[in-house]
Amino acid sequence: MPRLKIVDVSVRDVRFPTSDTLSGSDAMNPSPDYSASYVELMTDHSGLSGFGFTFTIGRGSDIVTRMVAELAEQFVGRSVGDVADMPAFMAASLEELTQDSFLRWLGPEKGVAHLAAAAVLNALWDLWARAAGVPLWQLLAELEPQQLVSCLSMRHLGDVLTPDEAVAMLEERRSGHQRRIEELRAGGYPAYLTSVGWLGYSDEQVRNLVNEAIGQGWNAFKLKVGGSLEDDRRRIAMVRELIGGERKLMVDANQVWEVPEAIEWIKELTDWDLSWVEEPTSPDDIAGHRAIAEAVAPVPIASGEQAHNRIMFKQFLASGAIGVCQIDSCRMASVNENIPVLLLAAKYDVPVCPHAGGVGLCELVQHLSMFDYIAVSASLDRRWTEYVDHLHEMFVSPVRIRGGAYQLPLAAGFSSEMTEEALAAYSYPDGTVWKARAESSNSHGS
Amino acid sequence: MPRLKIVDVSVRDVRFPTSDTLSGSDAMNPSPDYSASYVELMTDHSGLSGFGFTFTIGRGSDIVTRMVAELAEQFVGRSVGDVADMPAFMAASLEELTQDSFLRWLGPEKGVAHLAAAAVLNALWDLWARAAGVPLWQLLAELEPQQLVSCLSMRHLGDVLTPDEAVAMLEERRSGHQRRIEELRAGGYPAYLTSVGWLGYSDEQVRNLVNEAIGQGWNAFKLKVGGSLEDDRRRIAMVRELIGGERKLMVDANQVWEVPEAIEWIKELTDWDLSWVEEPTSPDDIAGHRAIAEAVAPVPIASGEQAHNRIMFKQFLASGAIGVCQIDSCRMASVNENIPVLLLAAKYDVPVCPHAGGVGLCELVQHLSMFDYIAVSASLDRRWTEYVDHLHEMFVSPVRIRGGAYQLPLAAGFSSEMTEEALAAYSYPDGTVWKARAESSNSHGS
Repeated sequence: MPRLKIVDVSVRDVRFPTSDTLSGSDAMNPSPDYSASYVELMTDHSGLSGFGFTFTIGRGSDIVTRMVAELAEQFVGRSVGDVADMPAFMAASLEELTQDSFLRWLGPEKGVAHLAAAAVLNALWDLWARAAGVPLWQLLAELEPQQLVSCLSMRHLGDVLTPDEAVAMLEERRSGHQRRIEELRAGGYPAYLTSVGWLGYSDEQVRNLVNEAIGQGWNAFKLKVGGSLEDDRRRIAMVRELIGGERKLMVDANQVWEVPEAIEWIKELTDWDLSWVEEPTSPDDIAGHRAIAEAVAPVPIASGEQAHNRIMFKQFLASGAIGVCQIDSCRMASVNENIPVLLLAAKYDVPVCPHAGGVGLCELVQHLSMFDYIAVSASLDRRWTEYVDHLHEMFVSPVRIRGGAYQLPLAAGFSSEMTEEALAAYSYPDGTVWKARAESSNSHGS
Repeated sequence: MPRLKIVDVSVRDVRFPTSDTLSGSDAMNPSPDYSASYVELMTDHSGLSGFGFTFTIGRGSDIVTRMVAELAEQFVGRSVGDVADMPAFMAASLEELTQDSFLRWLGPEKGVAHLAAAAVLNALWDLWARAAGVPLWQLLAELEPQQLVSCLSMRHLGDVLTPDEAVAMLEERRSGHQRRIEELRAGGYPAYLTSVGWLGYSDEQVRNLVNEAIGQGWNAFKLKVGGSLEDDRRRIAMVRELIGGERKLMVDANQVWEVPEAIEWIKELTDWDLSWVEEPTSPDDIAGHRAIAEAVAPVPIASGEQAHNRIMFKQFLASGAIGVCQIDSCRMASVNENIPVLLLAAKYDVPVCPHAGGVGLCELVQHLSMFDYIAVSASLDRRWTEYVDHLHEMFVSPVRIRGGAYQLPLAAGFSSEMTEEALAAYSYPDGTVWKARAESSNSHGS
C-alpha cells in the first residue's frame, strides 16, 4: 500500500424512485424512495478512492447528506499514511466521528449524526481495503486481533466485553480461518429473500414471486406483517403451503405493535413454524422485546436494524431480549461498531442475521457476515443474511447470489462503489432521471 | 382565542460564544458555544406568533436548524382553528412531526430529527398558550385530562401506561390544583445551582461562587466530576464544608465512566451525603444504570437529560435504574412527550428534577416543573429544578429566581421568545456579534 493523502471529497444525495412500485412497503414505511447519502474520499493516488454511504428512505436524505458533507470535509488534506499507519488513522477517525462533544450532543451516537458517521467510516474502510488490494472481509480476517480491536468502538461496553476479551475471542478462532474461507468460496453464505412479501403486494403477486424464487433455489423467505391479523394469517398459511415444511419462513412487523398487542398477535401466528418474528415493537424497547420473547417462546424474536448503537445491542443480547441479532451496515458506526456487536452476539450465543435490502445494504453487509463466520461465530446454524433484489445494478461490484446464498465477494474494497451511470441518473435533484421527472411533472401539472 | 392560520415561519441558528469563558464545561463537553435552533410561527393575527427552539452546543447547530426549517415550513398556510380545535391540531402535528415514516427512519424519535421536532412543537405550545392568554403551565393544568392526553405521545407505552390510566391519574389530582398554585405563587419551585461548579473552574472560583450563592439564598448546588478522582474528592469536600450539612449537594459525571469504573468511583464519593450522582455512564445504558444504582445504593443515580424519548424513560423508571428523573424540554418531543414521562415517574414514585441551563432551557422547563407539582406529582419532596445563570437576558420573559426557587411564570406562553436585540446580535453567522468576531479574526489572522 502506498502512502496516501485524502485530497478531496465528493458527497451526493442519490435517490431511487422506488415508491412508484410499492417495493419496500411495510407496516411502518408505506412508500419509501430508497436513497443513499454517498461519499467519495479521493486520494493523491490516481484512481484510488474510498466510497461509502448510509441509507435513508427519501425525504430527510438531504439533511443526512449535509451532515455527511460536514464530517467528510474535515478529512480533506489529511495524510492517511501507509499500511502500518491505518489502524491508528482509523481509531482516530472513529473517535472524531462519534465522540466529538458536538456530535455527542446531537446523539450521542444515534440519529442523523450517527448515520452520517457511518457513511464516512464505510468510505474509510473501503479505502483501506482497496489500498490493501483485498475485499474487506479478507482485510478484517487478516488483521492482527490486537490491531483490529484498536479500531473498534469499545466505549461503554466495559461491563460485558473488554478490549482484552475481544482480542482473546478473535485469537481463539484464528486456527479455522482458511477452512471456513474455503467453505464460503464453495457454498456462499446462506440468505433469505424479502422481495417476495412486501405489505403492498397482492396475494397473487406474493404467490408468483415465491414460486419463482423456489425455482431459483431460495430456501428462506420473509413476509411483512402487522397490517391486519386476518391478512397475516392468510398470507403466512399460503406461503407455508407453497414452500413446504423444510424451507424457512420469517415475518417482520416493522415496530407497529404495543407490547401486549405484540404478544397476542404473535400467539395467533404460531401454527406455521416461523424462524422469527422481527421488530414487534419500538426498537428502543429492550424490556418490551424481552417481555414479548418470554411470552411467545419458543418463537424467536428478532431486532436490531434500527438499534442505534452497540450499547443498545449490549442490553438486547445480555438480557435475552432478542434471539436473532440483526445488525445494519449503515445505522451503526460501520465496521467499527458492528464487529463489537458480532462479538457480543457470539458471547451470548445469539445468531447474527443482518438486515439488508434498501440500496447497497446487501453489498456492504455481506462482508460482515463473511467475517462473522470466518473469525467470530464460526457457525452457519440458524443464520441467514437478508437479501432483496433491488438496485444491485447500481454498483460496480454487485453481490452475487447463487442457490439462495451470497457468494464470497472477490473485488478489493467494501463493494460500496456506485457506477458512474447510476450517479448520473439518480443524483438528487440534478440527475437525469429526477430532472426528467421534474420536467414531466411541470408540463402535466401536479 | 381567535381563529388562527399560520402564514409564515422564520428559522434561525442563534449562537452564543460561551466557549470564551469555559462556562458550561464538563467532563464530556470541554468548550460549548450554547446555541438554539429557533423558530417563529407567524399567524394571520397581528403580533401573535409562537416561538420555540431546541438547544445545541455549537457546531452541528446548522444541521439541526435546517431540519427545523424543513419541518416548520410544512406548517405555512395551515389553519389552526379556534380554541376548540387546538387539541386535534396538536395531536395531528405531533403525529406528523414524530411518526412520519421518513422521520422515523432518521431516528426513530431520536437525534437531530427529534431535536428538530421538539423545536416546532415547543413553538406550537407557545402559540396555543399565547392565543389562550395564559402561561403554559396554566393552559396545561386547565385542560380537560381527556383533551390533554389526546395531545400526548403515548405510543409504545401501552404495557405500563395506557391513555385511560393517564386520564385517571390526572383526574385524581384535580382537587388540589388551586391550593398548589397558591403555594407556588408564594414560594416558587425549588431550584439547584449548577453555575458554581463547572469542571473548568479553579477551586478558588468555585469557592467564591458558592459563597456568593449562599448569600443569595441558594440551598442546593451541583458540581461536575469525572475528570480525576482526587480532584473530585477535594472539590466535593470543599463545597460540603462551605455549604454545611443541611444544604444539598449533587454531582454530575456527564457519561464518562464505564459501568464498573462508575461503581468504583462513586464508592469513593459517599462521605459527603450526595443528593445524587448524575449520568455516570452512557445515557442509552439502562441496564448499566441499574447495575450502578444497585451497587452504590443508597446514593441515588440520576439520568435523563440525554434519554432520547419516553420509551427509554419507561425502561429507566420501570426497572429502578434511576432514582432521579431528569427530563429535558428540548430533547424529547416537547410537552407532548414530557408529560407522559412525568406520569411514568409519578407511577414509579421517582422524583422529577429537570435538566436546564444551556440557553432557554430554564425558561421552558419551569413550566413543566410547575405543572408536575400542580397536576401530577403534587409533591416537592426531593425535587429541585436545575438552574444556571446564563443568557436569561436574551429572553423577553426570563425566569425569575428568588431564594433559590423559580417564581411562577405569569406571562402568556412558554417563555420561549428571544428579544429582538439578542436575535440581531447572536444569529449565526449574520448577527452583529458574529460578524464583528469574523472581521476581528480576519484582521488579526487566526
